[in-house]
Amino acid sequence: MALLTDAAIQAAINAKTKPLGALGRIESLAADIARFQNTLRPRMERCGLIIFAADHGIAGKGVSKFPQAVTRQMVLNFLAGGAAANVFAATSGVSLRVVDAGVAGDPIIHSRLISRRIAPGTASSLHGPAMTPAQLSAALAAGKALAEEGNDDALAFGEMGIANTSAATLIGHKLTGDPISALTGRGTGLDDAALARKTEILARAAARTPDNLSAEEALIQYGGFEIAMMAGAMLGAAGAGRMILVDGFIATAAALAAARLDPATRRAMIFAHISPEPGHQHLLAALDAAPLLSLGMRLGEGTGALLAWPLVRAAAAMLRDMASFEDAGVSGPA
Amino acid sequence: MALLTDAAIQAAINAKTKPLGALGRIESLAADIARFQNTLRPRMERCGLIIFAADHGIAGKGVSKFPQAVTRQMVLNFLAGGAAANVFAATSGVSLRVVDAGVAGDPIIHSRLISRRIAPGTASSLHGPAMTPAQLSAALAAGKALAEEGNDDALAFGEMGIANTSAATLIGHKLTGDPISALTGRGTGLDDAALARKTEILARAAARTPDNLSAEEALIQYGGFEIAMMAGAMLGAAGAGRMILVDGFIATAAALAAARLDPATRRAMIFAHISPEPGHQHLLAALDAAPLLSLGMRLGEGTGALLAWPLVRAAAAMLRDMASFEDAGVSGPA
Repeated sequence: MALLTDAAIQAAINAKTKPLGALGRIESLAADIARFQNTLRPRMERCGLIIFAADHGIAGKGVSKFPQAVTRQMVLNFLAGGAAANVFAATSGVSLRVVDAGVAGDPIIHSRLISRRIAPGTASSLHGPAMTPAQLSAALAAGKALAEEGNDDALAFGEMGIANTSAATLIGHKLTGDPISALTGRGTGLDDAALARKTEILARAAARTPDNLSAEEALIQYGGFEIAMMAGAMLGAAGAGRMILVDGFIATAAALAAARLDPATRRAMIFAHISPEPGHQHLLAALDAAPLLSLGMRLGEGTGALLAWPLVRAAAAMLRDMASFEDAGVSGPA
Repeated sequence: MALLTDAAIQAAINAKTKPLGALGRIESLAADIARFQNTLRPRMERCGLIIFAADHGIAGKGVSKFPQAVTRQMVLNFLAGGAAANVFAATSGVSLRVVDAGVAGDPIIHSRLISRRIAPGTASSLHGPAMTPAQLSAALAAGKALAEEGNDDALAFGEMGIANTSAATLIGHKLTGDPISALTGRGTGLDDAALARKTEILARAAARTPDNLSAEEALIQYGGFEIAMMAGAMLGAAGAGRMILVDGFIATAAALAAARLDPATRRAMIFAHISPEPGHQHLLAALDAAPLLSLGMRLGEGTGALLAWPLVRAAAAMLRDMASFEDAGVSGPA
């Protein structure tokens, strides 16, 4: 089928029974969906969320407010249906899969948990690479395969991993060149003194490697398994013709890595929200991304993506189902 | 039942399995809902949208880009299911009622149209009052009765009426004291010259009456029937224990009038989005309101309220359904 031109998409949107541009950001979102699906009757009815959980060797070095055990406890909370992601998935009509990408300790045994454990947590990136090249390949491949399953029109990705704002900060630093001090934030709620300590620790971890790294090398050096697996899932989703709902700071680090690994992935991405975590705007800028929501959310788990899904669904339905001035017999502007 | 304190509500939110404050605006929204419903297990499952349509005597005086006939044509489009409001109501799971509050011309005959016609359009507010005191009373009462029907947890209100940004601007001016020049905008898409003409016409209409008016007098002087009926519906909704999803500029003018008529109405209101129509931020400021969405939308019809409804539903479900740290056995911060 011939590629739809941007002009053809814009003309279809402009013919709808509304003043020109009156749906604002919903119109540009509809155009992005139409362009990706190459149709003026886009379909955005089914969305799935995959939450990737893993632990980080750098946790416990003073970078996080919560103990590492919380990663595992939250996986059990996802499986029991008690987390914010469960609640928002239910209200948004999104299905949910939970993946163990490498939680510390013994494997979690649960009938609904998808086990793709690379290892029980990464090595500490303060002293050496977080993972091996073989572990990166395995994580990317596992994510890609998961995103290729099923028949969702879009996939949202969430993460759980104590200390993963540290990993995202280091990846962002190496991929954008923006300074550690500008990218480091309070994560789950560090105070000023703890933020200064985290910044100093991350600067030491960053100093181990050259200023700019490839996406592969940044993931190997700084982890984690959930970020690498999510990047692989983004590559898989885009390749399978599914759009990607990018959540917050950590998911955007995965998105930036995925877009560097395969620039064609970028056009599948819809950016759900902007987090108060200061690094997020740097990563969004590197991706030339304008998020839909600004609600001061900084939870992860895919919660921002879940709240953006109804907007994505509405945008596609607008283009597919709204009447044109001609269809409806409505007069145009004078 | 005893009134829940703000501290009790905040404690319940803080006990949920997430870092303190990590859901940002969703948390304050959940607190507003809990306070209004006076329960830590709020219910936000059913929402209805009522669209009020009416015509304005000031249309055709050079204040609008579209001809007056479009009000009627859009009513038929709502009834046929082709408008943006229909599409978003469907994707958001919101039921829709369409009310003729006073469309110009002969009555529209349609089985699903709710006829509450006050008159076939208001008189021109350029030369005298838009409606009589008896017409205002009838419009308020009709709106109130409609909002008391049914068993929705929340009601969203939309409007259709060519030239109703002019009515909203004049009401806003008389209720806030902010200048006409700051409040007047492009409506459905006026160019610079037409905007200057609209501003000049509205300044003339404003000069007819004293600087500050009561809500009743502002509605009588400047209309329209759809705005007055919506204000009545907001009073009825709040009185019936339903929360109010306030849409854009025109709905916010109705909300400001309703809050002046009965200040207790304010606590039932949730502000859905901010429009680029410049008067909107003035009205929001007068109501001390922080809207949920900022998507550059300026269509009316309740479209912004419809897109905010999933957030409202999610916020209530968060407080009702999320596990606490204790329930889920998740460790708190170190």
